[in-house]
Amino acid sequence: MNREKLYNLIKLKRSFLCVGLDTDMARIPEHLKKSDDPVFEFNRAIIDSTFEYAVAYKFNLAFYEHYGSKGWLSLERTMGYLKSIGNIFTIADAKRGDIGNSASQYARAFFDHMGFDAVTVNPYMGRDAVEPFLRYDDKFTVILALTSNQGSSDFQMQKCGNKYLYEEVITRTSEWGSPDQIIYVIGATKPDVFAKVRGFAPGNFLLVPGIGLQGGDLNSVCRDGLNEMCGLIVNASRSIIYASTGQDFDAKACKAASELQRQMETILNNRKL
Amino acid sequence: MNREKLYNLIKLKRSFLCVGLDTDMARIPEHLKKSDDPVFEFNRAIIDSTFEYAVAYKFNLAFYEHYGSKGWLSLERTMGYLKSIGNIFTIADAKRGDIGNSASQYARAFFDHMGFDAVTVNPYMGRDAVEPFLRYDDKFTVILALTSNQGSSDFQMQKCGNKYLYEEVITRTSEWGSPDQIIYVIGATKPDVFAKVRGFAPGNFLLVPGIGLQGGDLNSVCRDGLNEMCGLIVNASRSIIYASTGQDFDAKACKAASELQRQMETILNNRKL
Repeated sequence: MNREKLYNLIKLKRSFLCVGLDTDMARIPEHLKKSDDPVFEFNRAIIDSTFEYAVAYKFNLAFYEHYGSKGWLSLERTMGYLKSIGNIFTIADAKRGDIGNSASQYARAFFDHMGFDAVTVNPYMGRDAVEPFLRYDDKFTVILALTSNQGSSDFQMQKCGNKYLYEEVITRTSEWGSPDQIIYVIGATKPDVFAKVRGFAPGNFLLVPGIGLQGGDLNSVCRDGLNEMCGLIVNASRSIIYASTGQDFDAKACKAASELQRQMETILNNRKL
Repeated sequence: MNREKLYNLIKLKRSFLCVGLDTDMARIPEHLKKSDDPVFEFNRAIIDSTFEYAVAYKFNLAFYEHYGSKGWLSLERTMGYLKSIGNIFTIADAKRGDIGNSASQYARAFFDHMGFDAVTVNPYMGRDAVEPFLRYDDKFTVILALTSNQGSSDFQMQKCGNKYLYEEVITRTSEWGSPDQIIYVIGATKPDVFAKVRGFAPGNFLLVPGIGLQGGDLNSVCRDGLNEMCGLIVNASRSIIYASTGQDFDAKACKAASELQRQMETILNNRKL
């Protein structure tokens, strides 16, 4: 998928919502735990109940690796299910980053083997850790810039010369690939930075985690974050998938996703997008 | 394992060699490819032929994830085999790093589920991405500081105030955990930095990739890198495991590992370690 296709999907669904499938066995409703693969059954139910309202699903790999090969199998099954439906943007939130030789293997794992449209990449190791992902046509490399957590102040907000490190990451990596190849992660918990980020990356999509339980606010993010192709994918995980942990978990997830979609539709309408 | 146990293992084996099991299906000898799990069969043969000379095995996760759940199964089998032998230091070279909630899942995956002694962690996301790993007793968190690749100059060597970013990473993360908890990755391709690194981290073990095919030199690393508990784990991957890609791959791996062990024994003897 490229920027245009992603924007078309957003216009079609009147939504820029990404549902984060950070599926934790400990929080799966009891009645699903008897199945062979509770993680897949949970994911399928969440997808069925939120698909109408979402343009993307994001899988945080940590929650799957927790169960080793079994967790990866649940992930493969879920991706197979999403592909059978089609017309959705899929993000492996893997935060990988390694020397070129290894980075190529990671790119193959997520783009070829798993068929994701995008994968999150950590820029700390520099250009040869990012480039193997950029070699794929019609795929996005999602580079961590300014994340939503408290620890983002430790290094990302360090002053390097006259820029913060995360700004240096954006300006430098922008030279390595186009906005059709690169998305940046900017946390919703820092809405004030979006105006500045748009100065460095006017055309790129931004993947925005941190609304909902982490405290970020949708309208604050959109104020300066939107661009003429929408340019935002806003992720919510726990506030949707664990809206209830009872039998009604999918109905409650549907409700939480549809509420966010309605807010997004209003925002898109107001901006004539 | 803690520092003292690791040092005892080094004294026992007269080696600080880590063999990197970056097992690539494309480079596995033909005669092994007929088995059900060629990656595991290859790893087992490499372990059998190098165990005498190594204190550690390091698994770069990229090479396993390439095959999805099947690759993770090969990894689980190999770890099971290593545990049945015992008395070896195992490193998951995963380079993970995520917000606290997800980092806890990664820590569980590698320490609890897989039983590794150490896991490599990317510091870009800051303290809450590192701390969940530090909570485990008798386990090491291996923090990327200055890596062996060319891209390390892009951000790690950026000046932040009066320090390079990698130096800031070492000084800041040193406040989060003791040398019994933290190992730093310093690439062998930059031997001149070891004296400076020892100023910031005198007591920590350093995991040193980059000798062999990447061009780093063992003696140059040891000159300033050794400390009174050895303090170095030097990794070689491709130069050992692909010393031959024929029927004699294990014999040639044995030879390559034993040669490095002999060099290391001489170095340890000269330093009276």
